[in-house]
Amino acid sequence: MIVLHSMQTTSNPFFAIQATCDNARAGLLMTDHGEIETPIFMPVGTQGAVKAMEHRSLLEVGAQIILGNTYHLYLRPGTQVLRAMGGLHGLSGWTKPILTDSGGYQVFSLRDLRKISEEGASFKSHLDGSKHEFTPESVVDIQRVIGSDIFMVLDECTPHPATYSYAKESMERTVRWAARAKQHDTESPLIYNKKQFQFAIGQGSVFTDLRVECMKILVEMDFPGYAIGGLSVGESADEMYAMTEVSTALMPVEKPRYLMGVGTPENILRSIALGIDMFDCVMPTRNARNGTLFTTTGRVNIKNAKWKEADEPVDANLDCYASNNTSMAYLRHLFVANEILGLMLATMQNVALYMWLVKTARKKIIEGTFHAWSAEMITVLNQVR
Amino acid sequence: MIVLHSMQTTSNPFFAIQATCDNARAGLLMTDHGEIETPIFMPVGTQGAVKAMEHRSLLEVGAQIILGNTYHLYLRPGTQVLRAMGGLHGLSGWTKPILTDSGGYQVFSLRDLRKISEEGASFKSHLDGSKHEFTPESVVDIQRVIGSDIFMVLDECTPHPATYSYAKESMERTVRWAARAKQHDTESPLIYNKKQFQFAIGQGSVFTDLRVECMKILVEMDFPGYAIGGLSVGESADEMYAMTEVSTALMPVEKPRYLMGVGTPENILRSIALGIDMFDCVMPTRNARNGTLFTTTGRVNIKNAKWKEADEPVDANLDCYASNNTSMAYLRHLFVANEILGLMLATMQNVALYMWLVKTARKKIIEGTFHAWSAEMITVLNQVR
Repeated sequence: MIVLHSMQTTSNPFFAIQATCDNARAGLLMTDHGEIETPIFMPVGTQGAVKAMEHRSLLEVGAQIILGNTYHLYLRPGTQVLRAMGGLHGLSGWTKPILTDSGGYQVFSLRDLRKISEEGASFKSHLDGSKHEFTPESVVDIQRVIGSDIFMVLDECTPHPATYSYAKESMERTVRWAARAKQHDTESPLIYNKKQFQFAIGQGSVFTDLRVECMKILVEMDFPGYAIGGLSVGESADEMYAMTEVSTALMPVEKPRYLMGVGTPENILRSIALGIDMFDCVMPTRNARNGTLFTTTGRVNIKNAKWKEADEPVDANLDCYASNNTSMAYLRHLFVANEILGLMLATMQNVALYMWLVKTARKKIIEGTFHAWSAEMITVLNQVR
Repeated sequence: MIVLHSMQTTSNPFFAIQATCDNARAGLLMTDHGEIETPIFMPVGTQGAVKAMEHRSLLEVGAQIILGNTYHLYLRPGTQVLRAMGGLHGLSGWTKPILTDSGGYQVFSLRDLRKISEEGASFKSHLDGSKHEFTPESVVDIQRVIGSDIFMVLDECTPHPATYSYAKESMERTVRWAARAKQHDTESPLIYNKKQFQFAIGQGSVFTDLRVECMKILVEMDFPGYAIGGLSVGESADEMYAMTEVSTALMPVEKPRYLMGVGTPENILRSIALGIDMFDCVMPTRNARNGTLFTTTGRVNIKNAKWKEADEPVDANLDCYASNNTSMAYLRHLFVANEILGLMLATMQNVALYMWLVKTARKKIIEGTFHAWSAEMITVLNQVR
């Protein structure tokens, strides 16, 4: 049964829920660089640029916030340049909101190049082997310099699979680090006079009790928003949805909820149904560069010979330059001939699809028809065109 | 002394000269895909795409005609796909004029993979080693399928340096091939019902008498337009200008003149002064991808550390998205971080500069102030910023 009710919260100047459809929510994030309608997908701009996409194209397809990565931006261009340029907004010229991940995921991916202690994580740069250390406090400081509107605490993205004992140990450290990060956020002045909202990250691998314990403690710490980390790292889709569900059940209703690194269009729709508001994933951009398109009528391997002479547009249903002005045959030719323009147009199509997906999901939540629409879309989007 | 006089020719429905300033000319090319104001620079889209640039960006910066390459398009996507899609216009969605080079330059560059005979050139594909043959006739046929508005005869781009005897032999074969190409053009019906204008190509290496002999014979054959080939292949700038000058002196005043593969902004301005109307070169796009920018205030190596914290725009004088919305510091960061967006923005800047250069040259020719402006611009554009 679909329940539509408005529950505008006036108490939270950062986030307001505008409509719900069972657990699915339509909301509004309010930052000093603009408002963000949720549920939202955030295109990934690791190094301060969404790969192969102009800022103006991002705006055209409806991007309202993009991601940056603290680890990558700390190494290049580095905090000195970022500070001199007025943060990542000043450097890049992107004027809408930015969210930065803490770099925890990247540092912990450097298996042989990093060492974890209670204090933080020391690591060698993947670029030149130079030695660095991230602490919960230093990562706040770096994100102050970046000037992101929403920024993440330093966590350990627990690898998958993990033993219960390691997952517990890792989760407990993530929780202690979150407390230090919050404390440091409170004590550190802003650099650019723009509000920055710090999100905590729930961990606990695929163990329900660890996820529950972690989220309960983090919620008590009263962060402006909450993320679920450590998913989409190799566990099954069922495990991912289960961990998301136990987490959202504990997250405060009036605060934004962010599922990190997820995922396929189906993952996103199913997680919206579980009460998630925010998503990021490299999938639309990375898959685009490999020639996999997401379209409103299904997935496409653009390199497939069947598109050789296909005059049809990439996606007739999307109001996007790449979707309407490019034939499948031309896009295939560009990929076969290794033309950069192919990467550009495929990226634009995929990001446009993701933005269309969350925008439409929002509309359907407000209309109270989310579940029926979502079920239908999952079938359509999963089919191979 | 600057002489400005209008000499509209009504007899040639393909080309009209609108103003001259000594030997420099401002004209209008009229094709079934639109008009082209000359002097013009034609961005190179070898495989049916200008590298790293959207069609709409090309239009924004003032591109009026782009190049395609017969050799590359014949191999990929091939004539079957091109024909099914309605030629290169249909495949690519580019609606303005297209000029195709014959592929002679590419075939003759395949030193160890090609064999020349009186009949034509047999070669092995650089992609898969498959065997093919180009004849003056087959190259006309391929360009019929491509449907380019202006197309080139098959020539031998004589390598540099060449002995006099080889250059003579090669030039004489090019002339015999031009006669066959013209005959075949006359006999072959159009495929898409759009006019196609065939240009002859003058050769003769750096030998004045060979250049003169070649051009005289070609002019007698009465082609719709004439090109100068085999320059910008390693000879000195003085030799290039000298060969251009002896060629333009013989070219019919009322027909368009195309200097192939040239060149730097200075090369273009100096050749406009010698009476050239059309240019193409990979320099703006290729140099962009290497981090060399052409701007209205001089050349830039964007990777240089001096740009690390430079807040200034890439080129404040150009009305172009990349020029005005990108700081030097951001573009440097994109290059250092190997972001595709860096290639995209640098390409847009360089093509915008070249389009601005020929557009302004045209304006100055019409105003009768070309020479003074050109001398000043050569100094400015050659300086390192």
